[in-house]
Amino acid sequence: MTKRIEGGICAAKGFTAAGIHCGIRKNKTKRDLSLIYSEVPATAAAVYTTNLVKGAPLLVTKEHLANGCAQAVICNSGNANTCNADGPEIARAMCALLAKALPVSADDVVVASTGVIGQPLDIAPIAAGIPALVAALSPDGSDEAAEGIMTTDTVKKEVAVSFTAGGKECRIGGIAKGSGMIHPNMATMLVFITTDAAISPAMLQKALSGDVANTFNMVSVDGDTSTNDMVTVLANGMAGNAPITEEGDDFAAFMEALNTVTVGLCRMIAGDGEGATKLLECAVQGAADEATAKTVAKSVICSSLLKAAMFGADANWGRVLCAIGYSGADVDVTKIDVSFSSAAGEITVCRSGAGVEFSEEEAKKILSEKEIVIGVGLNSGAASAVAWGCDLTYDYVRINGDYRT
Amino acid sequence: MTKRIEGGICAAKGFTAAGIHCGIRKNKTKRDLSLIYSEVPATAAAVYTTNLVKGAPLLVTKEHLANGCAQAVICNSGNANTCNADGPEIARAMCALLAKALPVSADDVVVASTGVIGQPLDIAPIAAGIPALVAALSPDGSDEAAEGIMTTDTVKKEVAVSFTAGGKECRIGGIAKGSGMIHPNMATMLVFITTDAAISPAMLQKALSGDVANTFNMVSVDGDTSTNDMVTVLANGMAGNAPITEEGDDFAAFMEALNTVTVGLCRMIAGDGEGATKLLECAVQGAADEATAKTVAKSVICSSLLKAAMFGADANWGRVLCAIGYSGADVDVTKIDVSFSSAAGEITVCRSGAGVEFSEEEAKKILSEKEIVIGVGLNSGAASAVAWGCDLTYDYVRINGDYRT
Repeated sequence: MTKRIEGGICAAKGFTAAGIHCGIRKNKTKRDLSLIYSEVPATAAAVYTTNLVKGAPLLVTKEHLANGCAQAVICNSGNANTCNADGPEIARAMCALLAKALPVSADDVVVASTGVIGQPLDIAPIAAGIPALVAALSPDGSDEAAEGIMTTDTVKKEVAVSFTAGGKECRIGGIAKGSGMIHPNMATMLVFITTDAAISPAMLQKALSGDVANTFNMVSVDGDTSTNDMVTVLANGMAGNAPITEEGDDFAAFMEALNTVTVGLCRMIAGDGEGATKLLECAVQGAADEATAKTVAKSVICSSLLKAAMFGADANWGRVLCAIGYSGADVDVTKIDVSFSSAAGEITVCRSGAGVEFSEEEAKKILSEKEIVIGVGLNSGAASAVAWGCDLTYDYVRINGDYRT
Repeated sequence: MTKRIEGGICAAKGFTAAGIHCGIRKNKTKRDLSLIYSEVPATAAAVYTTNLVKGAPLLVTKEHLANGCAQAVICNSGNANTCNADGPEIARAMCALLAKALPVSADDVVVASTGVIGQPLDIAPIAAGIPALVAALSPDGSDEAAEGIMTTDTVKKEVAVSFTAGGKECRIGGIAKGSGMIHPNMATMLVFITTDAAISPAMLQKALSGDVANTFNMVSVDGDTSTNDMVTVLANGMAGNAPITEEGDDFAAFMEALNTVTVGLCRMIAGDGEGATKLLECAVQGAADEATAKTVAKSVICSSLLKAAMFGADANWGRVLCAIGYSGADVDVTKIDVSFSSAAGEITVCRSGAGVEFSEEEAKKILSEKEIVIGVGLNSGAASAVAWGCDLTYDYVRINGDYRT
């Protein structure tokens, strides 16, 4: 049984965290450097962006995780360290500086950066800040670490759960940043997950890769796949469970717990999309296969026109049909049903590909809530999928019209 | 030699046009029904949307153009006649009513509709309006017809040119509507082209299909492929040239003239994108092949983040690199150069995949113009492509937050 708990990335035994302002950002009240540390080396797995332009930290992290082991995560915000000639050198220096200040090997450090692309990242404030960062490490540090990785995010994103494996109570927690340039493909945004469960590197990677296909890869804020997307999970085994090395009840319990954390973070990321006032969820049912369900759900969630309509609480279901029609999925458009639902109720607006009469007043009430579900019934099979996104608002334009200055 | 001339769709001999308000729209000052008529039957070709959800008028037009011949075009705005159970019946009724009022066979009528999806289209105002519409037909009617097909468009879109084929002066003119839900694929928006050149049906279709791949299919306003996209061309042969029946100088002259009309309309559509303040052109050079060049150009033009940055006149070239990186094209990111140019000058902002120093002040001046060219050099071959789009603004959100009411 997976149960929500407090503590974020410090919920799992043996993990401490910290977040400080070191000076990468001019605003002194904004933390810009975060650290996560496991008191023992941990099994590690990761998935990365499929963007051909990759942040330098991703290249270094990939090298460091080649042996399936890591003990610390260092991440700065305010600069993506991407498209810089000296990028890999700076990313390696961040790991080396940390290895001098903490009992950790430089090649057991996961390094990440997020912020503007193409501006050199100065190592000086990071070097100067690392002693204070290490000194701030605390079992209550998840909040500060979550703040330190935020860019245009308006809320901290933390989730933690407990579950049982091999008769032992285990915990998984995660933090995430992500608000714009969100359209993951194979990996996503920055997400750091910790667990005290004992699990083999192969099963940890299997769990993570299997999970992101249904969670982070089904989120879109603006259709732009970031260059610095990365999800990592560290498993330090301190829960004392018999290591999970194959499929079975324990692996299933681990997957369920991991999924609770990642879906929680997905909803937070989509709901905090740049400028967003509403979390949108597209739930597709009755598809011939899962790939079709996913393609349809994601196409609907990505439509700028539908996103703007949702901002205006306008039940313009024709835009849902339109987005399904151009998705590339092979669907029978004469079988499609569409509904809108929220805390205020549910309303069917289209049946068998054609409009049905509905109360505009009731639709307006339903679409004026903070969380909207767009239900799509394809009536062609038993497969389903869910995708998450947000509305398109004036503030998205304001935020991105002048992000650098 | 292709030469720009006046007259729009009435520039070619034997074509008349009209546009009236018949009452589909409540606003009595907005024309909502347009007609184009050739005094003799014309060779016809068309391309249509690839959206699986197709407007009823497209199905009827496809049937009518199966024999490669048409003589009139009727088009209403204010209602797309899409996702309506009685849609095909209404579209056929529009053709039949026109055939009663004009010397034209119902199956030689091209029918089109544009506006809201999923609301029944009432035939009554159209039936009542057709006599006035036919009475208004005039060789000076291109302006009125161009107005009658506008939805959220803020400017009329007309282009006409003259050229020489077989020693005869020929003319091609076109009108277009399109401002939102613009992301054509194989076909696009509503575009009606007329010419008095004599050309066989096969060569006319070849010319049109070849042209749209480089013109309308390279335009995007918001990534949403419409259900009602259609481009048709009618060639009535009244210029008296020897019919074009194969490749050669005359076909090349026809293609060049057609391309001048279509590129002109593409630029008008992109520049008048919903809410747009700027026309964006992405010119890709040095690609290994044309498909790569097109993929890169279109990915850049479609990036919401870049579009918002252009609205803010922010030289955020990292977003150009990011959009190239996730485009799916196989490019060497360490070879990419990026520049911005406009009437105010040109500035290189990225060379070999990394930033170069530039004056932010100069960049701001260049990006504050109405027409911006984003130059991308891939330095990997000789192929090139151009795509057109627009900036993303507060007004796009305003227009689409409540389109139906």
